[in-house]
Amino acid sequence: MRNLNPMLAATDAPPVMEARRWIANATFPADRPLLNLSQAAPADPPPEPLRQAMSDIVLNDPAAHLYGPVLGLDALRARVASDWSQQYGGAVRPDQVAITSGCNQAFAASMATLASPGDNVILPTPWYFNHKMWLDMGGIEARPLETGPDLLPDPGAAAAQIDDRTRAIALVSPNNPGGVEYPAELVAAFRDLARARGIALILDETYRDFDSREGAPHDLFADPDWDDTLIQLYSFSKAYRLTGHRVGAICCAPDRLAQVEKWLDTVTICPAGLGQRAALWGMENLHDWLAGERQEILRRRAAMEAGFATLPDWRVLGCGAYFAYVAHPFDAPSDAVAKALVDRASLLVLPGTMFGPLRAQGGSGRAGATLRIAFANADLDGIATLFDRLRDVTAQGLWTPPAPLPI
Amino acid sequence: MRNLNPMLAATDAPPVMEARRWIANATFPADRPLLNLSQAAPADPPPEPLRQAMSDIVLNDPAAHLYGPVLGLDALRARVASDWSQQYGGAVRPDQVAITSGCNQAFAASMATLASPGDNVILPTPWYFNHKMWLDMGGIEARPLETGPDLLPDPGAAAAQIDDRTRAIALVSPNNPGGVEYPAELVAAFRDLARARGIALILDETYRDFDSREGAPHDLFADPDWDDTLIQLYSFSKAYRLTGHRVGAICCAPDRLAQVEKWLDTVTICPAGLGQRAALWGMENLHDWLAGERQEILRRRAAMEAGFATLPDWRVLGCGAYFAYVAHPFDAPSDAVAKALVDRASLLVLPGTMFGPLRAQGGSGRAGATLRIAFANADLDGIATLFDRLRDVTAQGLWTPPAPLPI
Repeated sequence: MRNLNPMLAATDAPPVMEARRWIANATFPADRPLLNLSQAAPADPPPEPLRQAMSDIVLNDPAAHLYGPVLGLDALRARVASDWSQQYGGAVRPDQVAITSGCNQAFAASMATLASPGDNVILPTPWYFNHKMWLDMGGIEARPLETGPDLLPDPGAAAAQIDDRTRAIALVSPNNPGGVEYPAELVAAFRDLARARGIALILDETYRDFDSREGAPHDLFADPDWDDTLIQLYSFSKAYRLTGHRVGAICCAPDRLAQVEKWLDTVTICPAGLGQRAALWGMENLHDWLAGERQEILRRRAAMEAGFATLPDWRVLGCGAYFAYVAHPFDAPSDAVAKALVDRASLLVLPGTMFGPLRAQGGSGRAGATLRIAFANADLDGIATLFDRLRDVTAQGLWTPPAPLPI
Repeated sequence: MRNLNPMLAATDAPPVMEARRWIANATFPADRPLLNLSQAAPADPPPEPLRQAMSDIVLNDPAAHLYGPVLGLDALRARVASDWSQQYGGAVRPDQVAITSGCNQAFAASMATLASPGDNVILPTPWYFNHKMWLDMGGIEARPLETGPDLLPDPGAAAAQIDDRTRAIALVSPNNPGGVEYPAELVAAFRDLARARGIALILDETYRDFDSREGAPHDLFADPDWDDTLIQLYSFSKAYRLTGHRVGAICCAPDRLAQVEKWLDTVTICPAGLGQRAALWGMENLHDWLAGERQEILRRRAAMEAGFATLPDWRVLGCGAYFAYVAHPFDAPSDAVAKALVDRASLLVLPGTMFGPLRAQGGSGRAGATLRIAFANADLDGIATLFDRLRDVTAQGLWTPPAPLPI
């Protein structure tokens, strides 16, 4: 192809789409249908009352179909500010909140305000691949911050990586892909480091609604000067099952949002009107329902931990929110293992190689030995099926010839 | 603010949001309410049958609420390919089509595949401000290609601007802000130039459904090798009044779409599911309705031309699709004129200064002497009101003291 931006050309392909292609032409036995645990996405649509509310909006609210403010609906920004202030025990104002077309866009927009080519950003490994991809496309160096066996990053190690081109440290808690919940003290230590060095701390809390801890997961918003350092990102997609409507949020300083506004205006003009109204309706009406969803995810998490306890050859490095991050027992790189699991177990999960440089596969000590299992997509029966299949392939091996199909 | 990307900081603020702020705290006389002709956007929601179809989708199609393919729904890509093939008398395949979150995103994604910092792109002036903003943010030089009194760019002048860092020429037809429809021969000449020099021709056809010409506006798709040079952009927003749902399209070579996929995955993951289904429903069911919409826009255009014919101090440089681009008679820069029109005529239009470098205001011969009027937002009564007010301010001047309000 002529005229190809070399930075984009050098960027990895989207892992989820690549994994979809592994199964695009595959056929699965009738008694062993595909179990797709590759993407962090609810498998079901929003609850019926929210769908009904959305239908009413479509029919009766003309403004939902038309352009809205670039930084999002005032009412939704105000609601986020008010809920965050209460939940985190801090002070978040509406002018510190912007709505985006999903949380990936929140990261991209934030980063556009921070960094230009030649700058660098520190990402703990294993990292969220879309963060790495966005940095690569922009000519911004992603500095991998290796984590230990507990998948927690070390502020001291991060401090040693900062130089005069470092613009931010980006954390994800609960973590994707690791599943671990960062302790409040750890998050505060990263905030202190970022503030001391004059860089931003990006904290992606896409999965915060499924944190196993009661109460606020950190106290950063309780600091009245929080917005001199913190850029918090959020997604409405998981809480209210709105992945197809693309609604996320950024909380940061108003002068940074004035820069975000330029970027969002140019990239999408405004977030989708229906999705924003659905998110607001959810915040206003689905508090108890969401609490039940969280309990269900926590039950699935417990089922994952119990299941792996029966598979001593496997090792759980992290488990929480939507993900288990595990070391597999096979003597093969994780991408080969992931592809073999499609064929031999009708199971789609993502290999650890998609989440970082090979040398930093979740502190497992063996490059490429890990898999991310997005277990939140499966109900308890699905998780039971997962372990039936993992047990079979662990016992039989992944590369022995399959038994002939019954005729 | 610490840590600010200098390329984004140097980018202009979004003009439409800036204009909104001019009116945010203004009050308007009861007998002269605001007439907002600033944004190219339908004022009404989608027609009732489409709203009903969307309501049915919200209630009954679970997949509409969930993630979809990064490059858009297969059915919508196929429909675009089929309709384009028929309408343009050419061959467009589904794998040459991607769906985006609006046409601004289509431009941004295309440009991300083409250019990196230090490259340049040729834009005829007056230009569409979001194109210029996106280039500025990315460190890509926008080379202004001045147009003559007819607002048409000259391929010969463009040829002289191409150097070894030029990656594309970007045209908009029917033009925003100029309103002019580029002759098919002119578009073909730019294609020939781009092909000969090994660069891309981007053709943004957001307003093609309101072109006054019958039949295909150009024959570029009839060339079997069209995708070696052409990147065509489209928006479903205007045709089906879906601005708030963010749905656009890119037609280009499949290998370029593989690059687009990386960028879109990272920026929004996928276009909104409901908007895509609404666009498809519109293409399948609203052909006759859209033909009627076009006729209505053409009536408004005729009313604009007739109105300006009664105002000899004003000069129409271009008029078509959604826009009139006019030279005003006041001895003041266009941004001051636009602000004064808010106060004195309760009229919001955008100044020519927002559409290009000062030296190239639509070939008017006087920098900053032009205004863009997005007349499609107004019905025939609204256009009559527009001319009543323009007649008044032309006669009275913009800076004489206003008459005292009646008590």
